Amino acid sequence: MIIIMNPKASEEDVRKVKAVVEAKGLETHLSKGDTYYIVGAVGDTSILDPKKLQVLKGVDRVMKVQEPFKKANRIFKPEDTVVNVEGSVVGGGRLGIMAGPCSVESEEQIIEVAKRVKAAGANFLRGGAFKPRTSPYSFQGLELEGLKLLKAAKQETGLPIVTELMSTDYLDAFVEEVDMIQIGARNMQNFDLLKQIGRTKTPILLKRGLSATIEEWLMSAEYIMAGGNENVILCERGVRTFETITRNTLDLQAVPVIKRLSHLPIIVDPSHAGGYAYLVEPMAKAAIMSGADGLMIEVHNDPENALSDGQQSLTPDQFDVLMSKVKAVAKIEDKEI
Amino acid sequence: MIIIMNPKASEEDVRKVKAVVEAKGLETHLSKGDTYYIVGAVGDTSILDPKKLQVLKGVDRVMKVQEPFKKANRIFKPEDTVVNVEGSVVGGGRLGIMAGPCSVESEEQIIEVAKRVKAAGANFLRGGAFKPRTSPYSFQGLELEGLKLLKAAKQETGLPIVTELMSTDYLDAFVEEVDMIQIGARNMQNFDLLKQIGRTKTPILLKRGLSATIEEWLMSAEYIMAGGNENVILCERGVRTFETITRNTLDLQAVPVIKRLSHLPIIVDPSHAGGYAYLVEPMAKAAIMSGADGLMIEVHNDPENALSDGQQSLTPDQFDVLMSKVKAVAKIEDKEI
Amino acid sequence: MIIIMNPKASEEDVRKVKAVVEAKGLETHLSKGDTYYIVGAVGDTSILDPKKLQVLKGVDRVMKVQEPFKKANRIFKPEDTVVNVEGSVVGGGRLGIMAGPCSVESEEQIIEVAKRVKAAGANFLRGGAFKPRTSPYSFQGLELEGLKLLKAAKQETGLPIVTELMSTDYLDAFVEEVDMIQIGARNMQNFDLLKQIGRTKTPILLKRGLSATIEEWLMSAEYIMAGGNENVILCERGVRTFETITRNTLDLQAVPVIKRLSHLPIIVDPSHAGGYAYLVEPMAKAAIMSGADGLMIEVHNDPENALSDGQQSLTPDQFDVLMSKVKAVAKIEDKEI
Amino acid sequence: MIIIMNPKASEEDVRKVKAVVEAKGLETHLSKGDTYYIVGAVGDTSILDPKKLQVLKGVDRVMKVQEPFKKANRIFKPEDTVVNVEGSVVGGGRLGIMAGPCSVESEEQIIEVAKRVKAAGANFLRGGAFKPRTSPYSFQGLELEGLKLLKAAKQETGLPIVTELMSTDYLDAFVEEVDMIQIGARNMQNFDLLKQIGRTKTPILLKRGLSATIEEWLMSAEYIMAGGNENVILCERGVRTFETITRNTLDLQAVPVIKRLSHLPIIVDPSHAGGYAYLVEPMAKAAIMSGADGLMIEVHNDPENALSDGQQSLTPDQFDVLMSKVKAVAKIEDKEI
Repeated sequence: MIIIMNPKASEEDVRKVKAVVEAKGLETHLSKGDTYYIVGAVGDTSILDPKKLQVLKGVDRVMKVQEPFKKANRIFKPEDTVVNVEGSVVGGGRLGIMAGPCSVESEEQIIEVAKRVKAAGANFLRGGAFKPRTSPYSFQGLELEGLKLLKAAKQETGLPIVTELMSTDYLDAFVEEVDMIQIGARNMQNFDLLKQIGRTKTPILLKRGLSATIEEWLMSAEYIMAGGNENVILCERGVRTFETITRNTLDLQAVPVIKRLSHLPIIVDPSHAGGYAYLVEPMAKAAIMSGADGLMIEVHNDPENALSDGQQSLTPDQFDVLMSKVKAVAKIEDKEI
Repeated sequence: MIIIMNPKASEEDVRKVKAVVEAKGLETHLSKGDTYYIVGAVGDTSILDPKKLQVLKGVDRVMKVQEPFKKANRIFKPEDTVVNVEGSVVGGGRLGIMAGPCSVESEEQIIEVAKRVKAAGANFLRGGAFKPRTSPYSFQGLELEGLKLLKAAKQETGLPIVTELMSTDYLDAFVEEVDMIQIGARNMQNFDLLKQIGRTKTPILLKRGLSATIEEWLMSAEYIMAGGNENVILCERGVRTFETITRNTLDLQAVPVIKRLSHLPIIVDPSHAGGYAYLVEPMAKAAIMSGADGLMIEVHNDPENALSDGQQSLTPDQFDVLMSKVKAVAKIEDKEI
Repeated sequence: MIIIMNPKASEEDVRKVKAVVEAKGLETHLSKGDTYYIVGAVGDTSILDPKKLQVLKGVDRVMKVQEPFKKANRIFKPEDTVVNVEGSVVGGGRLGIMAGPCSVESEEQIIEVAKRVKAAGANFLRGGAFKPRTSPYSFQGLELEGLKLLKAAKQETGLPIVTELMSTDYLDAFVEEVDMIQIGARNMQNFDLLKQIGRTKTPILLKRGLSATIEEWLMSAEYIMAGGNENVILCERGVRTFETITRNTLDLQAVPVIKRLSHLPIIVDPSHAGGYAYLVEPMAKAAIMSGADGLMIEVHNDPENALSDGQQSLTPDQFDVLMSKVKAVAKIEDKEI
Repeated sequence: MIIIMNPKASEEDVRKVKAVVEAKGLETHLSKGDTYYIVGAVGDTSILDPKKLQVLKGVDRVMKVQEPFKKANRIFKPEDTVVNVEGSVVGGGRLGIMAGPCSVESEEQIIEVAKRVKAAGANFLRGGAFKPRTSPYSFQGLELEGLKLLKAAKQETGLPIVTELMSTDYLDAFVEEVDMIQIGARNMQNFDLLKQIGRTKTPILLKRGLSATIEEWLMSAEYIMAGGNENVILCERGVRTFETITRNTLDLQAVPVIKRLSHLPIIVDPSHAGGYAYLVEPMAKAAIMSGADGLMIEVHNDPENALSDGQQSLTPDQFDVLMSKVKAVAKIEDKEI
């Protein structure tokens, strides 16, 4: 960690900063430039809180050198993490294709969609039982009933299921019924939820927050991993920018950046990012090329009557076409589903 | 609601859209332009989900005319909402000044700070017991012990207390012990939490999410109000932008915009927005001038040893100076504390 | 265009708005909702300035239905524009691969790089002679001398040259010496420059501004086309967001969005977007998959000693590898270079 | 400057970085942490280009310690710069109030507005002769004729005039006719224009770019000052964010940040930032409280018929009211107009 002293800082100020750092068992190196005096803290600086140094008299700025995440950091675990959910594998050259409707609406619907996406090549079934909706007046999901229907679809098809948990109140039910727990973008920094799922063994799909930096995202993964659950898959789903034609801006650069910083697998959700069905195919293919370990795709048997997000859902027929293209693309990248 | 048909939409497509809207009991008006055919939906369009119209064949875009929030909407309640918490009043020309440390650290600390901020003119005591921290390795707050210490400080000073609730697990304790429940920026769209606090009668301080639009923020207020709790105060605390010198960008324009769209009171937190103590005074005064109904200010008796956010805290002496300036500014605006 | 009247607007206000619209030769349709009165303007509304309606008494908001761009609009010209520069073709299934150093530094350098990128499969040579630099103390480019060296490299290799014009002072020299004029991100709304290049016949490469919406970008293309020059190629090069690990956030969704709204070709510059060489290959392949008509790639024979942007440049050897991958990817997409 | 070596960097890599820095006449300090090796460069590091170090083998990241701007830096010139334009003073406790129409439309209009704003207390007349418009089909300003009309209004009222220059083609005319040259947000990084106005002696009003960081903005001021023209006034006018209700997000924190980093005066333009007349008064008062050295306000005698930006213009009567409030606010801050 680099502590930059204010041009007006006194020798006494510098001594104090040095003492505070050394009290933590770290070494310090001093260097004096033309306008700034610099204190370098050397050792395991993850135990230093930069904000607490920032406030010391005479300190101008504090700059971190080491990333604040450890368990998620590729430096400390160079080999790729591979998550295996009942034989469906994500990472290490294997693609996880998670497809299904935004909301689970009925047994008939979810089983029909599950059969179709399996036939097309998906290896996970996604579907929302608890739905985060901007308006309190919108459909909020079938809730526990939705979990049952997902389970029925799993029995029918064998596809492991992934669905969103919004509240610790239902954690036990999810641990029992669900194969992978999704944490949505709006809950990426719901730290209480992160801590509690960190104590389970269920694999977690952690979506990126709407305005989360990559570092914050990895720190949220770190919350889960610090609790003991290292089965974390990241999911890029678009970030909020000034552009209004698309719903969010899909940040595909995040894929190679995550691959460099972390050993965790990362998949991409092109359905939510753009918000329009016509963007799904080009972005799904682009995601695979960027190095993603999988995709999350909304598929609905009747998008015109979907209870949520129909405008971005593919029909099963469109998903068949998509998968044939995705397979061709995966082949060039030497990836298998 | 305005439904814009694709230039290639057929007459049949238009008829279908018309039928869907009319099936909800609304009227439709058609107008045909040079390139686009337009269907206007007239009546209480809050029952229409634009995303469900968006997906109909031939639809190009859907534009909302009416705001999606109702209980929070000034159109339906023109007079200002005034929140009175044990005699400390926010709104209607009265300023709520909420001051105290980022984290409650000890009985001695919180009581000392409470006395000082009261003496300087604050009418609420703020202090964090449960802390949302980016890193799992940072101090997470004294939790329930912190609530007790806040209560002790209230007994000593009479100041009502406001503190952040992060999880529904502690809702009962908060309803019992706390005078105003704060929902933090990261939980602004934790809909489960919003629903549950909406069923209480405790006044709520709802902070704006880091990248929440003003409309989304009001929809989160709507969640609380739809549950029956109309004592909601909004708090602007900076939004995330590309600027890195400051922690966030304080959006003071949000104050007059909220005043126009909604009857709810709005206060401003300049401590978290900028992230530096030197920005607090100019931004606090600017906030009052923008029309805010109050301020939330971090004050710590010993910022250099604060367990969190010391770099943005004022000392009690600095807070005395701030309050003397804030009072002068409030006077010009005909506001009282 | 949809004009939404304020809930308090009078009948007289509505009549006035109606009169203003009709005075422009357009028709109006009125519809009255529960809270808002709406005036629809029908006909060629591109002659109406929404800001001038906005200011009329009783008007709450004005919403555009029709895109404000015409010559760039796919509605009015459904077939793809194809730009042919001395046999190097961009658009219509043909990829333009523009490669070369950030800055032209010497005759030896530019000729060596030109030979290498041509051998690898590039069909344009890029290189900066006039450089937009954030600091006045950084190398500003070889200026006119740089143009001469580019021309020498063209004579050696036959590759058409593309280079950035920053000022109308050098327009004549560029028209004479350069095959394609690049307008950089920082000048995307330098309207004076756009007007003047619109009067030339030289093909234009128009980069997207750092925070330009897709609509603003197309309006800048419209400036050039309105002057008579319809040979415009768009270039996505990343937009500014809150993320700091990468230099900018590459918006690949912009590619299919542009394809839908406009007939103009669009290429992608992954070198500037991310700012790091390791991001170039994954993003270049992803760009092709998103539907781009080409790439702009920085290649330098000696990145460690480049006078600018070495950290994002590929070596000629790395570019050979990149091109072999790009060719494989292009094949799946049925595109040729 | 701090150069952080990659965890895999060799001793040889470190030696090379050290050699490159020392070759520039700077000293180096080495410190070895647990995972990263760090090279500190000490001395006048403004001569080092961080991008050129970034590209060296084994370098992970480069962090700047010293700000890259010098002439604009308060460290090197602690006292406030005060700009005096024919007796109208900006900075050092004196407020510059620049008011007038968005566009100059006729002699009658500009003279009437000039008289009214002078009577109300403005000490500069603003008005656009050359207008940057998003659409090529919008009114582009009266151009040179507009300059003449501004001059006529100056003769009538004695108010110095400030107006925007968009192209170096008209620089001579501006130097001759105009008292202060405005550089608009879209041209903040039109470096060619900055260089040329840097060679004049005319005071410059430099608006912040739509997505310019504060550091980039100061670097653009540095371009002008490096040419010899140190009469630069900064103008905050809102930055682009995800919020769509307002046109841009006014960043008032930029005012105290600029005051800390630089000695240059800074004013605020609340008219363009919000885009609505109702936001002007609260934001103008807030701007003064944030420490601004002045305001730029749009005033039009007939906003309903303005040729541009009527929706954000005040009438002369509204400006009278604004100025009476601004004077009261300025008094608390010990500022005079």
